[in-house]
Amino acid sequence: MSRLEHIRAKLRDDESFLVSNPVNIRYLSGFTGSNALLHISKLNAHLYTDSRYEIQAANEVSEFEVLISQDIWHQITKGISSAVLCIEAKHLTVGRLAGLKKEMPSLEFKECSDLVEQLRICKDSTEIELIKKACEISVEALRQLTELKLVGKTELELSTWLERKMIDLGATDKAFNTIVASGENSAIPHHQPTSRRISEGDLLKIDFGAQFQGYKSDCTRTFTIGKAQTWQKEIYDAVRQGQLIGRELASVSAKISDVDHAVRNQIQQSGFGQYFTHGLGHGVGLEIHEDPFLSAKTADKITEDMVITVEPGIYLAERGGVRIEDTGVVTSGGYEVLTKFTYELLELA
Amino acid sequence: MSRLEHIRAKLRDDESFLVSNPVNIRYLSGFTGSNALLHISKLNAHLYTDSRYEIQAANEVSEFEVLISQDIWHQITKGISSAVLCIEAKHLTVGRLAGLKKEMPSLEFKECSDLVEQLRICKDSTEIELIKKACEISVEALRQLTELKLVGKTELELSTWLERKMIDLGATDKAFNTIVASGENSAIPHHQPTSRRISEGDLLKIDFGAQFQGYKSDCTRTFTIGKAQTWQKEIYDAVRQGQLIGRELASVSAKISDVDHAVRNQIQQSGFGQYFTHGLGHGVGLEIHEDPFLSAKTADKITEDMVITVEPGIYLAERGGVRIEDTGVVTSGGYEVLTKFTYELLELA
Repeated sequence: MSRLEHIRAKLRDDESFLVSNPVNIRYLSGFTGSNALLHISKLNAHLYTDSRYEIQAANEVSEFEVLISQDIWHQITKGISSAVLCIEAKHLTVGRLAGLKKEMPSLEFKECSDLVEQLRICKDSTEIELIKKACEISVEALRQLTELKLVGKTELELSTWLERKMIDLGATDKAFNTIVASGENSAIPHHQPTSRRISEGDLLKIDFGAQFQGYKSDCTRTFTIGKAQTWQKEIYDAVRQGQLIGRELASVSAKISDVDHAVRNQIQQSGFGQYFTHGLGHGVGLEIHEDPFLSAKTADKITEDMVITVEPGIYLAERGGVRIEDTGVVTSGGYEVLTKFTYELLELA
Repeated sequence: MSRLEHIRAKLRDDESFLVSNPVNIRYLSGFTGSNALLHISKLNAHLYTDSRYEIQAANEVSEFEVLISQDIWHQITKGISSAVLCIEAKHLTVGRLAGLKKEMPSLEFKECSDLVEQLRICKDSTEIELIKKACEISVEALRQLTELKLVGKTELELSTWLERKMIDLGATDKAFNTIVASGENSAIPHHQPTSRRISEGDLLKIDFGAQFQGYKSDCTRTFTIGKAQTWQKEIYDAVRQGQLIGRELASVSAKISDVDHAVRNQIQQSGFGQYFTHGLGHGVGLEIHEDPFLSAKTADKITEDMVITVEPGIYLAERGGVRIEDTGVVTSGGYEVLTKFTYELLELA
């Protein structure tokens, strides 16, 4: 069954489905332009875009009939003949819905969420290959970075270097803005690189990823500059132990909240529980953060072919922080790490 | 009056305002993190974000009280005491609104659009300086590109080169994915760079921009590789004439639809009217495409301190296309071009 057919199978006979989220449009149709809508009914499948994308749509789209219009939000109302229109409640804005209701006053609107997102959670073999490639590119770039003379370079210089290296190694783009956080900046979980210079004694936390044909990787490693100090080793070991437990437990049928709990418990036992302030991980694919989200609140179970991160961290304000993060795919044999890179605490120069 | 005070002045006494669009959050508060909400009432101004951004928010935000919560969408409901909540209908999703209504069943919701966007249309002097800087960086990068030996390089190599050059010249980032479109690809208005090699006889269309402290530039120039052919000169001259008329007419108090009409009319007279298939231009600022949008449908008038593009194009399928685009600021003296770069048809090697 194609992705389109999977969606169609979920529609009732009197329903059709408006897809407005560009990531879901790409997933279902292959179209990568910035302005498009999909309309899927039991019998038809249409992609609406504007004339800028006419040639691109012809090249990228096969399973959907392409319709060109300068006002796709108006044009699509002419193609809807079902009694009920399912909409993506997590993406469609209040204003767009009001506009559609005005043009189609007798249509019933049904708020659907996650119809496509649920399909995207488990990756097919093509997707896994693309994510694997993005992961390989990113860890090779990181490996080369560890060979540089780092002391004296700024965080911004390193983030630029890493992003360029990933492109040189074949990435389509970076997956997101690279985090290079040194010294006390490493205590900021989502730090934006600054002109601070890497110095002897720093913790150096690097959170980054590559994009390959739309699919992303997400990886974090933390290093010391020069010889590791006792407190740095302590929090590093605590994160490393927690992350290991996360990878070991993230297997088919495990309850997500149980995995989160086990990792948090381990870090608690090391005495740093209060400093692990964010979720355990998330799905990775066409988006850098996508379903499933790994936290204490998620009762769902882990299933085969999920691609998820495991990324505990400890952040000591004004001193420094450590995070270790992998992207991995869940197989029948367990959590298979795709961002293969040592878990030893490397002391860089 | 601060931006916050401008917004407050638009609220009735029984109203407060929920800002969910990250660009508007940045514009009003200075906060650049990825997860935040603003709540503005007559008496209070709060920014909600999560613990990852605690330190960053403390550094970036002064006029808003920062509240840290792991679930900002839930937390914000506790801080709303007005009878009416204004929401950003163009940004808030149907699902988020449903969630808010469920938690606050007696609250009246008012769909507001463009409250902040309208304020953003006219730039202050700080914003204009940042956009000017982004424009200077981008045209200097383009100038250096024209000195390269281009024949034999791929579109992707050139887009990567240009993006890196902008960073080296001081840009924070690219403003959007650079379009390098050569030969028949130049007929695709929004082409994504490929591994096609630049060849003698090509049209080469480059649409790109830099980002400087959040503010963007947008510029397009089209070249020939080797000596320009007659048909290439013809469409280039038609676009150049049209673009000139657009720049001349884009002055204070001009009706946007009149400017659009005049440019379209000029290109029509050159015999290529049907090949100018997109809008005339758009606002540029924190977003690469923002209000006002310049088209036949916009009756609004141009006002001082707007920053807008003027970018007609002609696209002949399977042969090639030309677009010329500037970013400029509207002053009392007229449309002042910020992307200063020759309009001559350069023949590159």
